[in-house]
Amino acid sequence: MDSNVNVLVVSAHAADFVWRAGGAIAKYVKHGANVSLVVLSYGVRGESNDLWNVPGQTVDNVKAVRRSELEQAAQHLGVKDIELWDFEDYHMQITEERMDRLTKKIREVKPHHIISHGPKDAFNPDHEMVSDYVFRASVLSTSNGVQLEGYPTAKQARLFGFEPHQSEISDFKPDVILDITEVYAQKEAAMNCFKAQQHLIDYYGAKAKLRGNHARRCSGNNEYKYAEAFSRFFPYVGGELV
Amino acid sequence: MDSNVNVLVVSAHAADFVWRAGGAIAKYVKHGANVSLVVLSYGVRGESNDLWNVPGQTVDNVKAVRRSELEQAAQHLGVKDIELWDFEDYHMQITEERMDRLTKKIREVKPHHIISHGPKDAFNPDHEMVSDYVFRASVLSTSNGVQLEGYPTAKQARLFGFEPHQSEISDFKPDVILDITEVYAQKEAAMNCFKAQQHLIDYYGAKAKLRGNHARRCSGNNEYKYAEAFSRFFPYVGGELV
Amino acid sequence: MDSNVNVLVVSAHAADFVWRAGGAIAKYVKHGANVSLVVLSYGVRGESNDLWNVPGQTVDNVKAVRRSELEQAAQHLGVKDIELWDFEDYHMQITEERMDRLTKKIREVKPHHIISHGPKDAFNPDHEMVSDYVFRASVLSTSNGVQLEGYPTAKQARLFGFEPHQSEISDFKPDVILDITEVYAQKEAAMNCFKAQQHLIDYYGAKAKLRGNHARRCSGNNEYKYAEAFSRFFPYVGGELV
Amino acid sequence: MDSNVNVLVVSAHAADFVWRAGGAIAKYVKHGANVSLVVLSYGVRGESNDLWNVPGQTVDNVKAVRRSELEQAAQHLGVKDIELWDFEDYHMQITEERMDRLTKKIREVKPHHIISHGPKDAFNPDHEMVSDYVFRASVLSTSNGVQLEGYPTAKQARLFGFEPHQSEISDFKPDVILDITEVYAQKEAAMNCFKAQQHLIDYYGAKAKLRGNHARRCSGNNEYKYAEAFSRFFPYVGGELV
Amino acid sequence: MDSNVNVLVVSAHAADFVWRAGGAIAKYVKHGANVSLVVLSYGVRGESNDLWNVPGQTVDNVKAVRRSELEQAAQHLGVKDIELWDFEDYHMQITEERMDRLTKKIREVKPHHIISHGPKDAFNPDHEMVSDYVFRASVLSTSNGVQLEGYPTAKQARLFGFEPHQSEISDFKPDVILDITEVYAQKEAAMNCFKAQQHLIDYYGAKAKLRGNHARRCSGNNEYKYAEAFSRFFPYVGGELV
Amino acid sequence: MDSNVNVLVVSAHAADFVWRAGGAIAKYVKHGANVSLVVLSYGVRGESNDLWNVPGQTVDNVKAVRRSELEQAAQHLGVKDIELWDFEDYHMQITEERMDRLTKKIREVKPHHIISHGPKDAFNPDHEMVSDYVFRASVLSTSNGVQLEGYPTAKQARLFGFEPHQSEISDFKPDVILDITEVYAQKEAAMNCFKAQQHLIDYYGAKAKLRGNHARRCSGNNEYKYAEAFSRFFPYVGGELV
Repeated sequence: MDSNVNVLVVSAHAADFVWRAGGAIAKYVKHGANVSLVVLSYGVRGESNDLWNVPGQTVDNVKAVRRSELEQAAQHLGVKDIELWDFEDYHMQITEERMDRLTKKIREVKPHHIISHGPKDAFNPDHEMVSDYVFRASVLSTSNGVQLEGYPTAKQARLFGFEPHQSEISDFKPDVILDITEVYAQKEAAMNCFKAQQHLIDYYGAKAKLRGNHARRCSGNNEYKYAEAFSRFFPYVGGELV
Repeated sequence: MDSNVNVLVVSAHAADFVWRAGGAIAKYVKHGANVSLVVLSYGVRGESNDLWNVPGQTVDNVKAVRRSELEQAAQHLGVKDIELWDFEDYHMQITEERMDRLTKKIREVKPHHIISHGPKDAFNPDHEMVSDYVFRASVLSTSNGVQLEGYPTAKQARLFGFEPHQSEISDFKPDVILDITEVYAQKEAAMNCFKAQQHLIDYYGAKAKLRGNHARRCSGNNEYKYAEAFSRFFPYVGGELV
Repeated sequence: MDSNVNVLVVSAHAADFVWRAGGAIAKYVKHGANVSLVVLSYGVRGESNDLWNVPGQTVDNVKAVRRSELEQAAQHLGVKDIELWDFEDYHMQITEERMDRLTKKIREVKPHHIISHGPKDAFNPDHEMVSDYVFRASVLSTSNGVQLEGYPTAKQARLFGFEPHQSEISDFKPDVILDITEVYAQKEAAMNCFKAQQHLIDYYGAKAKLRGNHARRCSGNNEYKYAEAFSRFFPYVGGELV
Repeated sequence: MDSNVNVLVVSAHAADFVWRAGGAIAKYVKHGANVSLVVLSYGVRGESNDLWNVPGQTVDNVKAVRRSELEQAAQHLGVKDIELWDFEDYHMQITEERMDRLTKKIREVKPHHIISHGPKDAFNPDHEMVSDYVFRASVLSTSNGVQLEGYPTAKQARLFGFEPHQSEISDFKPDVILDITEVYAQKEAAMNCFKAQQHLIDYYGAKAKLRGNHARRCSGNNEYKYAEAFSRFFPYVGGELV
Repeated sequence: MDSNVNVLVVSAHAADFVWRAGGAIAKYVKHGANVSLVVLSYGVRGESNDLWNVPGQTVDNVKAVRRSELEQAAQHLGVKDIELWDFEDYHMQITEERMDRLTKKIREVKPHHIISHGPKDAFNPDHEMVSDYVFRASVLSTSNGVQLEGYPTAKQARLFGFEPHQSEISDFKPDVILDITEVYAQKEAAMNCFKAQQHLIDYYGAKAKLRGNHARRCSGNNEYKYAEAFSRFFPYVGGELV
Repeated sequence: MDSNVNVLVVSAHAADFVWRAGGAIAKYVKHGANVSLVVLSYGVRGESNDLWNVPGQTVDNVKAVRRSELEQAAQHLGVKDIELWDFEDYHMQITEERMDRLTKKIREVKPHHIISHGPKDAFNPDHEMVSDYVFRASVLSTSNGVQLEGYPTAKQARLFGFEPHQSEISDFKPDVILDITEVYAQKEAAMNCFKAQQHLIDYYGAKAKLRGNHARRCSGNNEYKYAEAFSRFFPYVGGELV
């Protein structure tokens, strides 16, 4: 694995990066890549159902809980460069200022890989919105004519999409199945930081095994135990058949 | 590039492997891979239109011409392990014996990559048939229960599909765009062996430049001048995001 | 649940009906439906990899083992009307005689529901072939002009497709997610009859939980724990919005 | 038919609910369901072409005519709970306030079924916009974190999409074909309230017969004379194969 | 309309050409085109349900009835060059001899347009088979290497697909909507020759009106009353934007 | 070719109309059609990369250069009715006022054909936005209820979409392949006005030859040398099979 890469992960809500790319993050960190994480919102309105069952719950408290959970999870994955942009969720709005902000972030990180939500998520409009947001900002980031003082243009990154929760009805096709066996314990530890969402811990644990099964079947390599699936926004381009 | 790989190319007719994967073949050969080529038919009925304009033309003569051309082309690409199976074309028929033959060939070559026709070709039923043939034989090649004396099972190969002549109406999506800049001169020389088909030499020359343009745009790497596109039968599985 | 229905299950290989529809079968049997099962082949060549690792293995022995396993599994599911047609697999061939045989079976059973393989299975050509076979026989079964002495025509059945092993790359979309919570213990017992395939027992156990999660999310009904997914060949037709 | 259900119908313009779901509405009302209808606009700009041919026509008069027609039509269908939100059409805009309004309506009605426009309508951007609006509001309606004083969260409803006017080029696939034979006379009476649009009365009369033909063919049930088709936003989830 | 064209219509069963292209045939004949019709089978097994309800019915009698009906219908449409190839239907088999026969027919007719079944028909495997048959023969007909004594090669024809009975679930998209207003009375008379199939006469009458409505909407031309829809196998190529 | 038609071309940026429809424009002008061109933006931010490499570059200077280039190009194509609307690009915003402006333009031009960007462009959000903008304005332009003083409604135009730069990953299917052989020299001259973008001149030159090859293959007409491909928003409607 090439250790000399920059990776930018953009997560719509507090926990998306853990369920959907925790293994990829841990693996890239482990092999020396520079991984930057942007969490756009705490998911207060749309992804904190369990917390709102507590009587007297407040927005500030939900944010504090989600922040604490996600920071612990990030620690398990080894990612240190984290930004929390605290957008309101459900439904997220993208202004011009926010577009510029992400464009600058991309120009700053100069990512080889950007990992975020894929274009369709049948039950989650925020995820679709973020997918479009990341794609558009990546287009702006490479364009000479988009002049942002102090932020010279970046080279085109590879864009990867998370697997959505209900893959088939979200038209998800796995383009890349990434072996995460060597870091799966870290992903498990990170998932366990979201105690109130035991059903998701179970779900994504089972998912990692299923994708591991697919990885073995497609490759004939029986050492793959756990895997994560991603879509690709554009074709793979390079010097080998992969 | 990993030099330690086995590559099997299966070409329906005499020239398909040149137009559609000449660059990939030359590149793999150059970097030390073991490349085996199976040409299923001479394309006497379906892909020798120009030769049949010669008065008094015969099947044997067409075969001799096509054989000579393809052998010269293969030489330019550097591939030495060539088999000509001489099936009748338009429309090719697959018998059980032919299925066994290809299954054995796969078990013998033990390819990491198989490159052949993709599942759909809007104007060419033979190409579709060969795609299915190669896929089915690859399934048989990995199965313990398919006992073929002297041919132990192979590990699952990666299957890649050629770009068909009219890509969009054949539902072709490029999954892999392979840079062939360093070997393009060889591909050009190989294409020039098919003198009677100047329109195809022009066509695939233009195509290589177009795919080169796409390669630069998708990667930001301006050293890519010429490229070939392939589809993938299954997702990429491995240890990195590619 | 309507107990007064006839269900026909057609399984390409010995274990397909268990992994993919064991819950549906057990549930229909439990509620009093007449469930008939046709197993077309023992899966000797294509789906008995583990057995062929045993030195000195023979076709007859593989058949005996698969037969014993599938009969035990069927017993756990409660299905008694079983036929084993012993076709050779990988790759299955459909003759006119076999087409007539299945047409007669459909006319005999007069199924309201036929459950079999869906039209696409990216890694398994037999499954695709059986899907087509079942569909064609169902068409013949309803046609007055197809005269089969002693077998009067049947009414059009609803056709349901199993979820294939790798759903997304087989273009599978779940049209029906069937709650199997009340019979899941039976499915688990049936799966455990295939001891040599522990990886599949794990896989389909995890799958049942994932589909249970989807069932809860799509319906808001938290009593759904385990589920199976099916595609539909035709639209639902009836008197309610379901 | 289960009489104990709540149904919410959301119609972009004054007559959409009649052409596209008049049968479904009449049937649910007849069997005792609670049917609520929201008509978002009068269709003054986009769906009142005939009225604007009258010299001296005014917006207020068009609204009055459309209102009168739709109220008569609703009476024929038996639906009493009607709200007219009087949005401007062509092209409708959804504000945050409107999003909240529909979210509250869903929480109030607590629908088992929501029937509205499907995601694509090749000639009608308003219909696509409403489809998205209804979907997004339904997501908000189930989320604990979306706190709307006095409106506790609802359970996830089933979402059904109307058949668009030009089905194939709008990528419409019928997932449910609903028999409306027993209430077809009511639908006809309701359609006849839109006198100025005789071409649509003819069109949707013919359509009901065509869908009736499909209903017979797919089911073998020859009592189906008239039908309406709907798409489903998510898979069917439940205890039976339907 | 260009009167100087050759049109070949290939109909799987006795009545397909009437329901699906009766208007196109009548129109081309009327404007002076040379229209040739090949009817591959009488539809004895698959499309003569009503006749088989007559006690004591025989194959020969069914054929005689279907022949008489189709000849009367053809007369109404004005087509005189008819061939009845009397293949067995349900399920039709294509041999090499039959492939040659159709290839010769195409080379003989030298059609500018071939009209036959489109690639998918969800309820009718014969129609799909014929679509493939016609396409393959058209490929052979243009190839110099396919030497058929006395039948020199033809130029590539435009291929058009009939609208299948259930369009959406057969993935049919109308590429061409042909105005048949001026000859609709002839189509109606032709349809009325199939007295026993009143439900189809009703169905295709309603269909012609629906397509007429679409024709008006897509073109703004209100003189279109009746229309037929066709798919195209390949893009339109020519000197204008149409 | 019918000379009596009105054609409206809407180009997102300064050069789009040249690369993608230069041949179509020149051809329609040559044959006497009334061709109107609207260029929405100069492409300052997104499509002037090369100019921004010049030290001290300014927005005003970029606009002046692009304006000069596009006017020269238009002259080569023979189009005189040009409007430059000077919207900011990357990312273009459509206001209600802009929607009215284009609606009025359509009502003024009364186009038979509108040529603009197709619905998807994988790398260019502006192109997608313009596609939607043109479609929506065309809907408004035909509606009686959209009252715009001095601009009576237009008849429904045919809408054609440009071929996007990377066709397959933009889901582009060529519906119409237009022969531009007789005006290709003009297109070449027009392309050469964009000197700084030699890579695009090469690219679209190669593309025109490839589409010419497809034109020959699909039609059997060997006089087609150069072509442009377009998608269609709706089916072709008319009196012939084309």
